[in-house]
Amino acid sequence: MAYELYYWPGIQGRGEFIRLALEDAGADYVDVCREKGTAPMMAFLDGKATTMPPFAAPFLKDGKRVIGQTANILLHLGDKIGLAPKAEPARLWTHQIQLTVTDFVVEAHDTHHPLGVDFYYEDQKPESKRRSEAFLKSRLPKFLGWFEHILELNPKGDKFLVGARATYADLSLFQILEGMRYAFPKGSAKVLKKMPRVAALHDRVADRPRLAKYLASDRRLPFNEHGIFRCYPELDG
Amino acid sequence: MAYELYYWPGIQGRGEFIRLALEDAGADYVDVCREKGTAPMMAFLDGKATTMPPFAAPFLKDGKRVIGQTANILLHLGDKIGLAPKAEPARLWTHQIQLTVTDFVVEAHDTHHPLGVDFYYEDQKPESKRRSEAFLKSRLPKFLGWFEHILELNPKGDKFLVGARATYADLSLFQILEGMRYAFPKGSAKVLKKMPRVAALHDRVADRPRLAKYLASDRRLPFNEHGIFRCYPELDG
Repeated sequence: MAYELYYWPGIQGRGEFIRLALEDAGADYVDVCREKGTAPMMAFLDGKATTMPPFAAPFLKDGKRVIGQTANILLHLGDKIGLAPKAEPARLWTHQIQLTVTDFVVEAHDTHHPLGVDFYYEDQKPESKRRSEAFLKSRLPKFLGWFEHILELNPKGDKFLVGARATYADLSLFQILEGMRYAFPKGSAKVLKKMPRVAALHDRVADRPRLAKYLASDRRLPFNEHGIFRCYPELDG
Repeated sequence: MAYELYYWPGIQGRGEFIRLALEDAGADYVDVCREKGTAPMMAFLDGKATTMPPFAAPFLKDGKRVIGQTANILLHLGDKIGLAPKAEPARLWTHQIQLTVTDFVVEAHDTHHPLGVDFYYEDQKPESKRRSEAFLKSRLPKFLGWFEHILELNPKGDKFLVGARATYADLSLFQILEGMRYAFPKGSAKVLKKMPRVAALHDRVADRPRLAKYLASDRRLPFNEHGIFRCYPELDG
């Protein structure tokens, strides 16, 4: 039975981390809201269609199971679609990396929403400027520096984050870089100069045959100013 | 061999979610930095003592393994210390709830640090006021309302979040309430009036014998203005 992904239809957002994994694996899935609108999604979020309603989208339906939280979905999918190690310690390490991606995504989002999701960007522009400056100066180098470092320390070489094969965490790191280059073309280029392994991993992922096909298709939504990664030139230090 | 917990010694912070689980289970553990200072912790964070350095504390040493990310540590510990279901779907649902706790903790922290961790609270007081107002008005009710709802939907009754027995997620929900009552005594009381199941769960957890003993001991650090939950009366609606 095909996996069913439920996510807001107009943005890459957090759903994209799941899409990348499903697409790279060649898994059979339906992107439900892009085909049928958001009503079926809302029935799950409201707790009308399940006793385990996710707090928010994305969530995945796998048979009768409804699984929420991006990193949790990838933890569940990982072995099943061949994008996670089987051994428990490496499996948990992959998930730990993904949870650090999750932390990064919150901070990237908050560059344009430091006062929270209840105000529009237009109502928090000076605050966004201050937060973005700190993000580009200290947080982005700290996060990307950590990814660079764990690539360097990987006993199986620096081609992938975990072991000698691609995992969903590599796809997510690719997506972070895509987002940074869209949102902060100048600021991120400066930081990435010092991160050769991270930059090379991005290109290695982009060249994976199924993923390259997906990225060139209209299933890959373009970035826009409703998602996590937004291009506001005034924030790009 | 005793578990080793590594976390900043002066605050409850994210480490407290791990301490509550270890204490409730009566597990043998060492709170390393409170006994030996932070130098051993830094060796792991710097990648000098492991090829899998966590991005940040807390992390847990279990034999030779070094495991980071609060929710990931609890996922690892859960079955081993009897605070998670054995069946895979319920185990993943417990983790999903914990990841929603993680999301909540970020937002609770950001009420006093909306512009990020690179500025002191004193340098972002008007911004903290705006973010706290939105937090108390919409985010806190949304999160606690979700916990109330999943308690209500639990097929095994509304005493615990998952099934008919306590899990680490219940301990974490207890801790969130402790934090909210410390940081926002007025604002949280107003919200909790409408959340009888969540409030009752808090008291049920506080009465667990080993946990009650821990909470009365000097191992339980008091809340203070260096942690996640801070009492700044000017932010309390």
